[in-house]
Amino acid sequence: MTDISDLLQRQDYHTARHILSNLGTLGIEEVLTRCDKQYRGIAFRLLRKDLALEVFERLDPVYQQEILQELREPVVREILENMEADDRAKLFDEMPPEVAKGLLEGLSFKERRLTSLLLGYPENSVGRIMSPEFVDLKVTMTVKDAIARVRTSGREVEAIYSLPVINENGTIADVLDLGDLVLADPQQKIGELISDETYYARVDEDQEKASQLLLEIGYIALPVVDTDDSLVGVLTYDDAMYVLQERDTEDIIRSGASEPFWVPYLSASVLTLTKSRGVWLMVLAIAATLTVNVLNIFQNYLHSAIQLSLFIPLLIGIGGNIGSQSATIIIRAMALDEVRFSDLFTVFLKEIRVGFFLGLSLALIALLPVGLIFNWDISVVLFLSLISISTLAAVAGSVLPMTAKKIGIDPAVVSAPIISTLVDASGLIIYFLIAKAVLN
Amino acid sequence: MTDISDLLQRQDYHTARHILSNLGTLGIEEVLTRCDKQYRGIAFRLLRKDLALEVFERLDPVYQQEILQELREPVVREILENMEADDRAKLFDEMPPEVAKGLLEGLSFKERRLTSLLLGYPENSVGRIMSPEFVDLKVTMTVKDAIARVRTSGREVEAIYSLPVINENGTIADVLDLGDLVLADPQQKIGELISDETYYARVDEDQEKASQLLLEIGYIALPVVDTDDSLVGVLTYDDAMYVLQERDTEDIIRSGASEPFWVPYLSASVLTLTKSRGVWLMVLAIAATLTVNVLNIFQNYLHSAIQLSLFIPLLIGIGGNIGSQSATIIIRAMALDEVRFSDLFTVFLKEIRVGFFLGLSLALIALLPVGLIFNWDISVVLFLSLISISTLAAVAGSVLPMTAKKIGIDPAVVSAPIISTLVDASGLIIYFLIAKAVLN
Repeated sequence: MTDISDLLQRQDYHTARHILSNLGTLGIEEVLTRCDKQYRGIAFRLLRKDLALEVFERLDPVYQQEILQELREPVVREILENMEADDRAKLFDEMPPEVAKGLLEGLSFKERRLTSLLLGYPENSVGRIMSPEFVDLKVTMTVKDAIARVRTSGREVEAIYSLPVINENGTIADVLDLGDLVLADPQQKIGELISDETYYARVDEDQEKASQLLLEIGYIALPVVDTDDSLVGVLTYDDAMYVLQERDTEDIIRSGASEPFWVPYLSASVLTLTKSRGVWLMVLAIAATLTVNVLNIFQNYLHSAIQLSLFIPLLIGIGGNIGSQSATIIIRAMALDEVRFSDLFTVFLKEIRVGFFLGLSLALIALLPVGLIFNWDISVVLFLSLISISTLAAVAGSVLPMTAKKIGIDPAVVSAPIISTLVDASGLIIYFLIAKAVLN
Repeated sequence: MTDISDLLQRQDYHTARHILSNLGTLGIEEVLTRCDKQYRGIAFRLLRKDLALEVFERLDPVYQQEILQELREPVVREILENMEADDRAKLFDEMPPEVAKGLLEGLSFKERRLTSLLLGYPENSVGRIMSPEFVDLKVTMTVKDAIARVRTSGREVEAIYSLPVINENGTIADVLDLGDLVLADPQQKIGELISDETYYARVDEDQEKASQLLLEIGYIALPVVDTDDSLVGVLTYDDAMYVLQERDTEDIIRSGASEPFWVPYLSASVLTLTKSRGVWLMVLAIAATLTVNVLNIFQNYLHSAIQLSLFIPLLIGIGGNIGSQSATIIIRAMALDEVRFSDLFTVFLKEIRVGFFLGLSLALIALLPVGLIFNWDISVVLFLSLISISTLAAVAGSVLPMTAKKIGIDPAVVSAPIISTLVDASGLIIYFLIAKAVLN
């Protein structure tokens, strides 16, 4: 890994340019991503123009913005003019509105219209990320005509691998893969090549849902239609993959009790990182004060049986872990559409048994050593508590995220850390009630 | 959602067949995936043959196996013969070896050879999932010849969107997109259309690494070469997406302290679920006994200051949450190649500050209420403990997974639950040491 920052700091532009000229787009992207923030724009300016345009489009919008700030006005305009409409919309989306507006006005009429179109759709809708330029075929065309059409109008279009086919009334009929078109007999009609199954997304539909559909049916691009069924764009597989990867990142980060911050980690400031974690932490800390209350209530009791307190972290730790296990497994199964709310009862029955067996195994292992090292009363209390807490945790960990999703809350919000914290307090109550019953 | 199981239980095959005939492949896939296990094979047998073959290939290998068991020998052979070599290898991979061997012997020579080839590569290598059939072009061909070649040999090949281009000496030169081929002048030479950047994967390389590369460079298929640089197959984007989605599932499930079980949740038995969680739970429980030891050491002390015990779950809960936050954020950043081991020191500096600020904020909020409700000594102990534990947790949560990856352990193994458990015990020691210093 070449450290370009050092060279740029020494103002050795000649060597830096030489190094960059020997790298491919992916290599340059890596250098730009990993170099010091203050040298990113300078390094970009050293690139050959054709490479610069190509590399720019691959960069994260955060870096794109940083670089644009370092470039002169006409260069900025040229770069923006040459971006795909959907990539440009993504960049504008993350800019301060007044900056985006100024840049938008600098674009040619055609590109400005395409970008405004995309930005007009609701956030997180398919409309925002679709490619508004496409080559459409008619059912009545011959294969030969269709290929000619692709050849004349395909040069400016991002997505020519899945070609939408339009009925005579203007509605979408199906998608034809470019490969099938190339392989077909030139005299055949397009209508004979397509199937009677049509998959497409609505322009205001959720991005994640449409992307998961594209992945499942295996298209290279999914047609996007307006409310009157007319074609307005296509969702390409690479944008869909980007959406799904972001969904997974969001779920993973939330499962660790943070808000996703949408900036590469090394570029995120300490303040950004602290904020993305602080809110969650505060909520969890407030929920955790429940445990202080429970312990306070049982304080006298705790005083007379101090040994009980030794097992508190262990017990609630195990409860939290089992709850986390159930929550992460169920949230992932819902994201992949393997489990739906209608399966609630099936899941409940499964988790109650899984929780019970896990608790029982741990309880059986603990029974003897705790009895011998401490005493048999404590051992029995622990045995019963482990089984009850484990069962409760497994059920809460699965039922709560499913219910959250049903009532419209992102289930990842009710994920592992929240479940653990809730199980902590209820687990303590169970523990002391069992202790009271056994020890008295 | 039609409940086909009911119909099949009543042996109303006529209605079931009618319902299935009105569904597309995606609809049928859903019915088969969600119907009761014992009716899956029966439902499959009701399908029209062409649809049956198409649907079969889309199903999860678990369901594929279940269905095969319900079909007669010649039908099984026909289905397997018609699958893509890489899908078939995936299915054989999950079968008991002797069953797979029997089925392999029933295949035609050509298909058997293709499948054996894939199965001969190491597990998790690109070789296992590549498509061994492809259409390759030579640099010396004209565009016209190349299109003719695609038309004659492309019919039996899965991947014709990214066409590998071979140098005269047989090594890989570049990949040409079918779209560029269609748009090009028929008299041009292939050599003029390709760039001088070549991206490819080695056949024994890790699947995840190659898939992430494919996603980054945006190819539809990535060439796969042998040790002598000769082309042996292509990795198609849909298989790469499948690999990346599985990687994310693995990371998510591990972050919740389970082993992934690779079966859709509803099809996983209670035993499978219990086993996938039991081992982790045991490890965590054993680690958690450390907390019992720590508390046991400080037992007398705890007895004389019983109020200290009230805050134990709260304190270690917060420590665990901060550790989890750091671990999930860093593990994701490493999976997306945003952070590498060489960034360890940068990460360390960042997390130490994030942890400190988070701890300080919580400590400031807690100071007054704890002082008023309990007493000021406890309040000071809590203040100092919150800051120290939070800082420690943030550092441990980031440094440990990075170090694990460096020494060859999957960082997801050292994820949130493990970090929490480790922070629990060390947090307790810090708490009691601070308490001793302040209260004495």
